[in-house]
Amino acid sequence: MKAVVFDKELKLDNNYKKPEPQKGEALIKVCLAGICNTDFEITKGYMGYVGVLGHEFVGIVEDVNSEDKSLVGKRVVAEISYGCHQPDCEWCNKGLVRHCPNRHTIGIWKKDGCFAEYITLPTEILFEVPENVSNEQVVFVEPLAAACEIVEQLHIQPIQKVLVQGDGKLGLTTALALHAYNYDVTLVGRHQNKLDIAKNQGVKTLLSKDLKVEPTWDVVVEATGSIDGFENAMALTKPRGVLVLKSTVAGSKEINLAPIVINEITVLGSRCGQFKPAIELLKNERIDFKPMISHVYNVDDAIEAFEKNKDKESVKVLIKFD
Amino acid sequence: MKAVVFDKELKLDNNYKKPEPQKGEALIKVCLAGICNTDFEITKGYMGYVGVLGHEFVGIVEDVNSEDKSLVGKRVVAEISYGCHQPDCEWCNKGLVRHCPNRHTIGIWKKDGCFAEYITLPTEILFEVPENVSNEQVVFVEPLAAACEIVEQLHIQPIQKVLVQGDGKLGLTTALALHAYNYDVTLVGRHQNKLDIAKNQGVKTLLSKDLKVEPTWDVVVEATGSIDGFENAMALTKPRGVLVLKSTVAGSKEINLAPIVINEITVLGSRCGQFKPAIELLKNERIDFKPMISHVYNVDDAIEAFEKNKDKESVKVLIKFD
Repeated sequence: MKAVVFDKELKLDNNYKKPEPQKGEALIKVCLAGICNTDFEITKGYMGYVGVLGHEFVGIVEDVNSEDKSLVGKRVVAEISYGCHQPDCEWCNKGLVRHCPNRHTIGIWKKDGCFAEYITLPTEILFEVPENVSNEQVVFVEPLAAACEIVEQLHIQPIQKVLVQGDGKLGLTTALALHAYNYDVTLVGRHQNKLDIAKNQGVKTLLSKDLKVEPTWDVVVEATGSIDGFENAMALTKPRGVLVLKSTVAGSKEINLAPIVINEITVLGSRCGQFKPAIELLKNERIDFKPMISHVYNVDDAIEAFEKNKDKESVKVLIKFD
Repeated sequence: MKAVVFDKELKLDNNYKKPEPQKGEALIKVCLAGICNTDFEITKGYMGYVGVLGHEFVGIVEDVNSEDKSLVGKRVVAEISYGCHQPDCEWCNKGLVRHCPNRHTIGIWKKDGCFAEYITLPTEILFEVPENVSNEQVVFVEPLAAACEIVEQLHIQPIQKVLVQGDGKLGLTTALALHAYNYDVTLVGRHQNKLDIAKNQGVKTLLSKDLKVEPTWDVVVEATGSIDGFENAMALTKPRGVLVLKSTVAGSKEINLAPIVINEITVLGSRCGQFKPAIELLKNERIDFKPMISHVYNVDDAIEAFEKNKDKESVKVLIKFD
């Protein structure tokens, strides 16, 4: 089968071995997949991963290796990680498989990803896609779930002011999700055309040059993906406020942490999230992701799709498999 | 009067002007005061402060500039900051004068400190000392309140494992306070003689060389005062755990923040606290601070006391005024 593989370099393999579902796994034919900045970071060496890339997709179940075949023919999406489920695993027992030290993470850690014609996955992490949600919408469910993770971790009061820093995919998705939850959210970034995607759906927006750097925001979400974003976010967070750190940047910077203590700021690390609330938002048509799609490539042009993803003007680049 | 003044250099001034209480202020004769590492940081330029140093003390009220003279003759301690109390001040209105942008902070910001024979302070920040609490105990009330601040900010469950990093004044006080609240606390540091002060009061202790650097602690309190302490604390904090940042270090360091996101760690900045819970702990005799006192100097030898405070073997150095 065709697969986009990273092994020191990124390549399209036309004869990658089609996977076979193990006990409890489904064989899924991938329809549409999305490129995430983490995929790009992996091609720069992040996690030391080797294998098929990709963790955002929607597909159709072709077979299930179990007696229960009820998922066959269903359109599904899959959570990004699955745990070890050993009886003594504290994390699996708490339902926090995302932190299981022996977890598999699709296309990132110990498990081939979805940039391929087929993928096999445990049925426990599959979710059926509601009929009214298109492939173009539901392919965003994984980054949307990551945005919803903030709402799982943090109680934001309706009167609090939330600032999302960064108008890339991560910032846009986060701002749209928090707006869908009716928080008072402002998105700040450098690109008017990207800000407009959020603005057209009711999010307040500001160009970076128009933002006063004052500690007046109850919650600041750092989603620039840039190493300089953190100190800027500290300067914007109110005393006793919360700085949600979403960007994972593979790199270090000289940082003075004293403002965290003096202003008693809470820095909250936030990674991936559960699919249930994200699917609810999509089912209830609270967000339109179509304006975020800047390009759709056929799998045969996947390498070009990766190149296009680097382009500052691109927002979301998708890969289709039919 | 005699006063320990910092103005580019530290000096003992034998003829500093005795302050006069303004409306609503008390005139307090200082009995005993404690040197804090913040005082030492100020002599290196922290906050750009000029004036009488010191913010930890116990004294006796000699006069009050108000009709209500009930405090005269009483033994008192004073919270470190007082707010502007303007009707539109969000922080004063919330009772968070410690974050009022126009606050005065004794011996640190816009207000002469307590390393002097007399100090004047608003009566609203004074607390009468319970009869059974000696001057040698209550002189620790300010750092104890700062330790209790953690309990105000964070809900720690009794089954959670807490690690306090650093066996200096800050770490010892924090470990003793959290132990007084019956948390499962372990103090880690490099000096067996300092660890023993906590161990003798029931705190679990570990020499740094015996601590396994694994992410197994629910809560890690960074109190080393060293710029390297933060990354070490990140490596010890469990996924979804809390790293309480107590050390204020005047300096920057190259830090990789990715572990905060990947492990969804919460970093909680924590500064000074309210006196009420700290006085309760002292009144109920939950902590014995006397073993922390390594030296007591007369005000005439205050400069020598500051020198002694730099000594790695010293724990708490006090200055007395009679």
